[in-house]
Amino acid sequence: MAGAGKTPELTHFRDGLPRMVDVSGKASTLRTATAEGWVRLPPEARAALEAGTNPKGDPLTVARLAGLAGSKRTADLVLLCHPIPVTGADVQVTLEEEGVHVVATVRTTAPTGVEMEALTAVTVASLNVYDMLKAASKAIEVTGIRLLAKTGGKSGDYRAPGV
Amino acid sequence: MAGAGKTPELTHFRDGLPRMVDVSGKASTLRTATAEGWVRLPPEARAALEAGTNPKGDPLTVARLAGLAGSKRTADLVLLCHPIPVTGADVQVTLEEEGVHVVATVRTTAPTGVEMEALTAVTVASLNVYDMLKAASKAIEVTGIRLLAKTGGKSGDYRAPGV
Amino acid sequence: MAGAGKTPELTHFRDGLPRMVDVSGKASTLRTATAEGWVRLPPEARAALEAGTNPKGDPLTVARLAGLAGSKRTADLVLLCHPIPVTGADVQVTLEEEGVHVVATVRTTAPTGVEMEALTAVTVASLNVYDMLKAASKAIEVTGIRLLAKTGGKSGDYRAPGV
Amino acid sequence: MAGAGKTPELTHFRDGLPRMVDVSGKASTLRTATAEGWVRLPPEARAALEAGTNPKGDPLTVARLAGLAGSKRTADLVLLCHPIPVTGADVQVTLEEEGVHVVATVRTTAPTGVEMEALTAVTVASLNVYDMLKAASKAIEVTGIRLLAKTGGKSGDYRAPGV
Amino acid sequence: MAGAGKTPELTHFRDGLPRMVDVSGKASTLRTATAEGWVRLPPEARAALEAGTNPKGDPLTVARLAGLAGSKRTADLVLLCHPIPVTGADVQVTLEEEGVHVVATVRTTAPTGVEMEALTAVTVASLNVYDMLKAASKAIEVTGIRLLAKTGGKSGDYRAPGV
Amino acid sequence: MAGAGKTPELTHFRDGLPRMVDVSGKASTLRTATAEGWVRLPPEARAALEAGTNPKGDPLTVARLAGLAGSKRTADLVLLCHPIPVTGADVQVTLEEEGVHVVATVRTTAPTGVEMEALTAVTVASLNVYDMLKAASKAIEVTGIRLLAKTGGKSGDYRAPGV
Repeated sequence: MAGAGKTPELTHFRDGLPRMVDVSGKASTLRTATAEGWVRLPPEARAALEAGTNPKGDPLTVARLAGLAGSKRTADLVLLCHPIPVTGADVQVTLEEEGVHVVATVRTTAPTGVEMEALTAVTVASLNVYDMLKAASKAIEVTGIRLLAKTGGKSGDYRAPGV
Repeated sequence: MAGAGKTPELTHFRDGLPRMVDVSGKASTLRTATAEGWVRLPPEARAALEAGTNPKGDPLTVARLAGLAGSKRTADLVLLCHPIPVTGADVQVTLEEEGVHVVATVRTTAPTGVEMEALTAVTVASLNVYDMLKAASKAIEVTGIRLLAKTGGKSGDYRAPGV
Repeated sequence: MAGAGKTPELTHFRDGLPRMVDVSGKASTLRTATAEGWVRLPPEARAALEAGTNPKGDPLTVARLAGLAGSKRTADLVLLCHPIPVTGADVQVTLEEEGVHVVATVRTTAPTGVEMEALTAVTVASLNVYDMLKAASKAIEVTGIRLLAKTGGKSGDYRAPGV
Repeated sequence: MAGAGKTPELTHFRDGLPRMVDVSGKASTLRTATAEGWVRLPPEARAALEAGTNPKGDPLTVARLAGLAGSKRTADLVLLCHPIPVTGADVQVTLEEEGVHVVATVRTTAPTGVEMEALTAVTVASLNVYDMLKAASKAIEVTGIRLLAKTGGKSGDYRAPGV
Repeated sequence: MAGAGKTPELTHFRDGLPRMVDVSGKASTLRTATAEGWVRLPPEARAALEAGTNPKGDPLTVARLAGLAGSKRTADLVLLCHPIPVTGADVQVTLEEEGVHVVATVRTTAPTGVEMEALTAVTVASLNVYDMLKAASKAIEVTGIRLLAKTGGKSGDYRAPGV
Repeated sequence: MAGAGKTPELTHFRDGLPRMVDVSGKASTLRTATAEGWVRLPPEARAALEAGTNPKGDPLTVARLAGLAGSKRTADLVLLCHPIPVTGADVQVTLEEEGVHVVATVRTTAPTGVEMEALTAVTVASLNVYDMLKAASKAIEVTGIRLLAKTGGKSGDYRAPGV
């Protein structure tokens, strides 16, 4: 199913890698990150969502809560990610013309950023939308997962082009 | 950042939902699912990957293992998903022209399918590619996460169009 | 705060205990369990719930989903409990005259029962109701957690008196 | 089993809820919380506990350790709870005239309180008492789970009436 | 601290590895595994254990329960391990002349064995003995972790030499 | 398999134990810990490792990542351990004359040390080496797990004899 994969030579990597980057010396400061993603719905899945007759319940509510809970599991899933004490999280899951839109904002006071926590929240919320609607269609697609903005940290603030 | 979200009336849903669908009466049979996804790399991220000088280690190896481990966390992340005893998993993470390609196949003998396990493996692997390369670029995008094929179960086999 | 606790002599216990009971020889059969519990709400907490103005969101929806997810964490919490592949779960959280009523039914096909899974779902749902409303009152009480009914297994069916 | 549940209109809730409350701006200060609960034992369960012949081992010891471990799982179970670095925990499980009494005290230095951690410790300990004795009786009941006292935080100290 | 490490050429490995071995086609049969390990105690640690005055509590009881609970976390820790529904577990932790002896037996009915579950139980129990006594000595050593015996599965029964 | 175990009288322990030691009053300071362990390989296991033909993949790479991930699970496994926000981790897994050598260094800024996190990383990495090679030999042994050095904290720095 894949083309002829070109895997870079692992021996290029420095001895002793991979490792969890040392952030012991960095100050704990306020950091935020916002990420988004889309769940593209074929017509049958969209109809099931709009009709409100989905046999497992409301996909948007489940996804919102799953995304909030998922942000707390980031360090379990991302192998080299530091465990971060999330101090606030907000996940919006709305039905738009183009599909289900997921936007997550995560906040912390920590020595490292929360981009991965926001992206994990978006991803987990999207997987839950998929799970809730997969009986209606097998052609659902999760797409466009990206960082919209971040603040705090030595690399400074960031805003995605056009945001 | 979102448009005017249109949330369907929750009151449409039947009383007592959401719930975890009852599969107690279904037979445990062999089931497989294959899913894919893409991590789009801006030039700096691609250069860091190809140069093999990434300060955290090799993204493809980390992603492959994280995806395998992630498939076992599906029921923790997808709130209404049944816990499934995965009996085999295979995650390929390769560098292609269009970006990093993730393909995951999961197998089980269970009363319900493993689509969510395959999709979770792809998603978690993709998040790990992102994490490994995020120091090189903040414009990485995870996209095209979809089911390629499934076998087993009463809904029969499925193959995505063109696969 | 406690009275004079009377702890039984530990040395009465047989050598080698505690242990996880061996159920290897038991057949995997259909088993169900239903449990209930109550969250007693002081007037301010009840008012916050009924007004729908709770700053964290709707307690009943959150509790229902948390209970469903919680049933899958039973073996993590109950140290000597066997891990069980839950095949169905249903958690109802309703506001009644006497408080918030939680009723959970869990199903499995396994060599041992799911009483603890149903009780864990009730308990976790109740803790989430508490958490959602604790800003309104510190005098909320979780109470009356008990098994209502079970079916399957060699100990036979059970129905609580008056149920 | 339940009466005619009266669920408040979800549409009362503000857009975008539920969410994890933002405590980023709050100072990390010393906070403690003490909670209690009771496990009511029918005569056969009490006899099994007092005789020390329970086939799975000593319920009080298992419950005490499970409660301590459970306090660390709070953010996994309570969907909108912040992850908190618990800095001390103490769980007492004693046999009293009225049943098994569980009292848990949890401490932290954090921007938010540990009421939920203390209540989770009590609840998990109680579930473990239940599990250890359920072979002796199916009519065990967990009851009276409430906050006894808390210190620290902007909402000030609290002590339950009569404590 | 290490000598000149000799890492084998990763490129020797077949494309697409690592992977979780496919056991979908294997029958679910009864399997058991017994493993052991030792915790060597310097005199101060042994004295603290024998005096029963350890400030955190009894190391042997805590270790026994932690080992039982740990056997259920195997698939979380061992990345390519299949999740197994453990149907029985027994962990003995005793003080001997040579140190603390940990022996764990795990049983399942599954398509693959439980050697890793028994070894994980031993390892986790040993880490808990260490943690309970580390205030008394920093020179505790965990050693001699090995498989004593296994039964079931196509590779047949095994018994360590001299056991 | 065990000799006549001599379990110390539990009644020696002070009332209310075990407990998670209160470190609320201790300052958060930089702390590091380094631990090591060995996996002894019988000839067939060593040959499989050196030939690079192991059917599950490369044991050293898997072990390194599993150890890094494992360090984040310490508080889940060690019942009375405080949850610690690890700020850096480094796990080396190399093939030496005497076997596979695992060395883990963990860093944090916290009120308590990370000895258990470093030891858990070593242990989990070792279990993964075992799992990857267990098809080649059932006589693999994990041994010599000990603390090499620690810095920070009121008990001062430590270096194992001869390190």
